[in-house]
Amino acid sequence: MHVLIIGAAGMVGRKLTAKLASDPALLGDQGFDRLTLVDVVAPAKPDGFGGIVETVTADLSAPGEAGQLVAGRPDLIFHLAAIVSGEAEADFEKGYRINLDGTRQLFEAIRLESLREPYRPRIVFTSSIAVFGAPFPDKIGDDYLSTPLTSYGTQKAIGELLLSDYSRRGFLDGIGIRLPTICVRPGAPNKAASGFFSNILREPLVGREAVLPVSTDVRHWFASPRAAVGFLLHAATMDLAPLGGRRNLSLPGLSATVGEEIEALRRVGGDKAVALIRHEPDAVIGGIVAGWARDFDTGRAASLGFRAEQSFDEIVRAHIEDELGGTVGG
Amino acid sequence: MHVLIIGAAGMVGRKLTAKLASDPALLGDQGFDRLTLVDVVAPAKPDGFGGIVETVTADLSAPGEAGQLVAGRPDLIFHLAAIVSGEAEADFEKGYRINLDGTRQLFEAIRLESLREPYRPRIVFTSSIAVFGAPFPDKIGDDYLSTPLTSYGTQKAIGELLLSDYSRRGFLDGIGIRLPTICVRPGAPNKAASGFFSNILREPLVGREAVLPVSTDVRHWFASPRAAVGFLLHAATMDLAPLGGRRNLSLPGLSATVGEEIEALRRVGGDKAVALIRHEPDAVIGGIVAGWARDFDTGRAASLGFRAEQSFDEIVRAHIEDELGGTVGG
Repeated sequence: MHVLIIGAAGMVGRKLTAKLASDPALLGDQGFDRLTLVDVVAPAKPDGFGGIVETVTADLSAPGEAGQLVAGRPDLIFHLAAIVSGEAEADFEKGYRINLDGTRQLFEAIRLESLREPYRPRIVFTSSIAVFGAPFPDKIGDDYLSTPLTSYGTQKAIGELLLSDYSRRGFLDGIGIRLPTICVRPGAPNKAASGFFSNILREPLVGREAVLPVSTDVRHWFASPRAAVGFLLHAATMDLAPLGGRRNLSLPGLSATVGEEIEALRRVGGDKAVALIRHEPDAVIGGIVAGWARDFDTGRAASLGFRAEQSFDEIVRAHIEDELGGTVGG
Repeated sequence: MHVLIIGAAGMVGRKLTAKLASDPALLGDQGFDRLTLVDVVAPAKPDGFGGIVETVTADLSAPGEAGQLVAGRPDLIFHLAAIVSGEAEADFEKGYRINLDGTRQLFEAIRLESLREPYRPRIVFTSSIAVFGAPFPDKIGDDYLSTPLTSYGTQKAIGELLLSDYSRRGFLDGIGIRLPTICVRPGAPNKAASGFFSNILREPLVGREAVLPVSTDVRHWFASPRAAVGFLLHAATMDLAPLGGRRNLSLPGLSATVGEEIEALRRVGGDKAVALIRHEPDAVIGGIVAGWARDFDTGRAASLGFRAEQSFDEIVRAHIEDELGGTVGG
């Protein structure tokens, strides 16, 4: 079995690669023997994998690239590659080129390969809760319409539609999963408008200050990086027949306020850690966050076996175990 | 004011052209003085219009065509052009090329023109209830998700998303209207799976037989060609501000059964007309029709001033007035 990960150098891509390399049987008793890692920056080869690993530095949207990747006839493709929300908004053409054209060229390459010789790979496509845009109900249900308020969300929603149609036509066997906001993101603070949700946990846990630009009653929708990898593995191995024609779904997450997040930090790091959060209201970020989804009813994904954290304590614990060696310094 | 109609040679395009030419003040007191008609087959010039009329035979998806049309800087663009459902399903590549690429190239040409020199035309885009796919509730509400079960519906749903994003970014001022099934379609019977809804009225009204391939309890969603032209004119002139970020909407229609349709025929043409309907069940058409939407709650469109027929009697009357000179022969 040949596994292709597109977007392998990103945070989730690296974690997925490491997990798969450490335990190939996660994809079934047969495991897999070939792994192709692709990204616009060179992906690292994972440790401890006995099969063939190929790394490719490529832009999926460049002419011919998708065809080359598909020529290797991977059985399972994780399509995680995307220009993130902020950049897709700042650079309209680049966002459409990477997020829409890149995705469509991948699906088209698969279709053309399937016409040449029977082929129907499983595709796991990471979509986003950005396909939804305010106003929405308190809980967004499985039947709620997509009305994105960003170009990124638009591109993800179009990717979902293409995935469904190409699956319906039998060219590929796709599932699109709308990830919650991933928290705690490891690494340095970034400039994403959502970055503060992670910053205010990650930085104080190692004795550094973090800025909170919104009020503590802001509610949002979260899952840990560990849960995200679990979602991808489940999507890669589950029976897709129960999806019917609806190939995309909102995944479980934790709906919590910033205040609840801070109390979880307090239980682990004490008042000292919480004191490192500096409240500096930012009207621009506040405005962006006000348009984001806060809570979901994900009955469909739950009935299909997807699981996420139930509390911020679990999310913080996952971060401490996976990123900080299991303990926080006093 | 310069008006561009893309898809002007189609049934709705011809009716819209004739209506506008006969009364330019329908677009406001100033009227309009220039009309460009485009289609893949040569559109006819309308009678009685005093302004400049240009007809163009062009394929919107061909390289450079969209740019040429937009170079004339039309203030109002009706984008009605599409490969219909059956053909888009039979020819995957053609459907995507015309319905997706053609639409995107039009929007891109407008964006590039707007970057060159300020420009923000109104676009009226005809979408379709094919953006919805079973299973759905008895009435599809304004917040219900799009999960098309045809490539045509997928292409229309993608057009809606692009229209919203390009509008949000300020490149154009778009509204997407999901038309009900148009009934009674004038002209010869066609092979569309939905054709029988029109055939069983139009043919018996002039003494010809028609085939009914489904049972009389089949329910569907209808509006007359006259209502469709009214929708387009309203979309062209209304204030779009109340749409907010949600630029696409399901339009009002009549939810009725085939049996109700036949009773309306009986009231006009008597038992003699009804006897011309030959019931020949067709499992394939029955299966297709079972996946179609039957009823909608279109509160949003109604509150924005869109109006359709309330009964099949009205639909039949519109057909007799507009196509048969106001009377039916005994």
